[in-house]
Amino acid sequence: MSPLPSLDGTHAGASLSARYFRFAGVDRGDWQVLDQRVIVGEALADVAALTVVPPTSPTPDSMHWMLSGVTSNERYVEREEKAALVNRQEPLGRPGATCAALIPIRKNATWWALTQDERRRIFEADSRHIAIGLQALPAIARRLHHCRDLPTPEPFDFLTWFEYAPQNEPIFDKLLRDLRSTHEWSYVDWEVELRLMREA
Amino acid sequence: MSPLPSLDGTHAGASLSARYFRFAGVDRGDWQVLDQRVIVGEALADVAALTVVPPTSPTPDSMHWMLSGVTSNERYVEREEKAALVNRQEPLGRPGATCAALIPIRKNATWWALTQDERRRIFEADSRHIAIGLQALPAIARRLHHCRDLPTPEPFDFLTWFEYAPQNEPIFDKLLRDLRSTHEWSYVDWEVELRLMREA
Repeated sequence: MSPLPSLDGTHAGASLSARYFRFAGVDRGDWQVLDQRVIVGEALADVAALTVVPPTSPTPDSMHWMLSGVTSNERYVEREEKAALVNRQEPLGRPGATCAALIPIRKNATWWALTQDERRRIFEADSRHIAIGLQALPAIARRLHHCRDLPTPEPFDFLTWFEYAPQNEPIFDKLLRDLRSTHEWSYVDWEVELRLMREA
Repeated sequence: MSPLPSLDGTHAGASLSARYFRFAGVDRGDWQVLDQRVIVGEALADVAALTVVPPTSPTPDSMHWMLSGVTSNERYVEREEKAALVNRQEPLGRPGATCAALIPIRKNATWWALTQDERRRIFEADSRHIAIGLQALPAIARRLHHCRDLPTPEPFDFLTWFEYAPQNEPIFDKLLRDLRSTHEWSYVDWEVELRLMREA
């Protein structure tokens, strides 16, 4: 007989998935907010700092907002692309990567009504999303979080977290410019960008 | 300034996504459990009945276990396949569909380490998952729930809910036989099957 761990999961305080991350807008935290840029849609409430809360940590006592997401298997990447990415990408937490950015994104209903082949075609054949991303490696490290399928409705579909050294900011700026000029981005109907600096 | 609804989402009692469903193992409920069949892995704790809890309802006061999942966009279906499915499928809740089944499934780590193109190839080119499913339409109605990316770890990756009229049970049996003989199913490492009958 299985103990069925999910029953506990219905109660507050249950252990969280190791792939679940929360981003809390706070007064004092791990990352200082330098700037909020609204690309499309509404701004988030302005905060002075941001704390990345791993699954094993409690949320800060006082916070202005919180965004949640879960890392998952890739939805579009094919084997050769994966090999190229793995070969070039670096991990989060590099000592020199004192700059970061959190970019929450929502895609519109038209995007989500597309089938897998249609989304993949726009994502890579039309928009070269993976190829553009590869150009920013290894300078830019990133982690993608999915929010669309959480039990409580989240305002965004994706949260992407980026880390890089100050001298690589131009590479990050180019990455964003290139992605935002793609066909894929015409489906993005909410996007904000928080530029961050690690607290000393 | 955005009100950031997700902050409320961190507290118990927050409204749930309209795509979030829970299946509670109970003593008395909407569906009587006729039989549990263990295909691979452990059995669930035996229960007399099962209640499907929609997002807008509270969970039963007394339950032995609960499984949760969220409906989402399709991960493999292409446009022509989607058209064929939509054209033939019928909704849940048909008056004559007094039989149901809940089939929780977990796939192994090898499956989840595959890339999208590899999973799609196994799913359809090798295993004809969609083609096999089409053969059971319109007799069998179904709803697929994803569990793998929930904030609290769930025992299974997918929960599929099926409804059909008693005279169509042979079609349902054949559907399961056909799917379980595929290459795709070699990645399934936990699967149980609850056969149910609607309470009078």
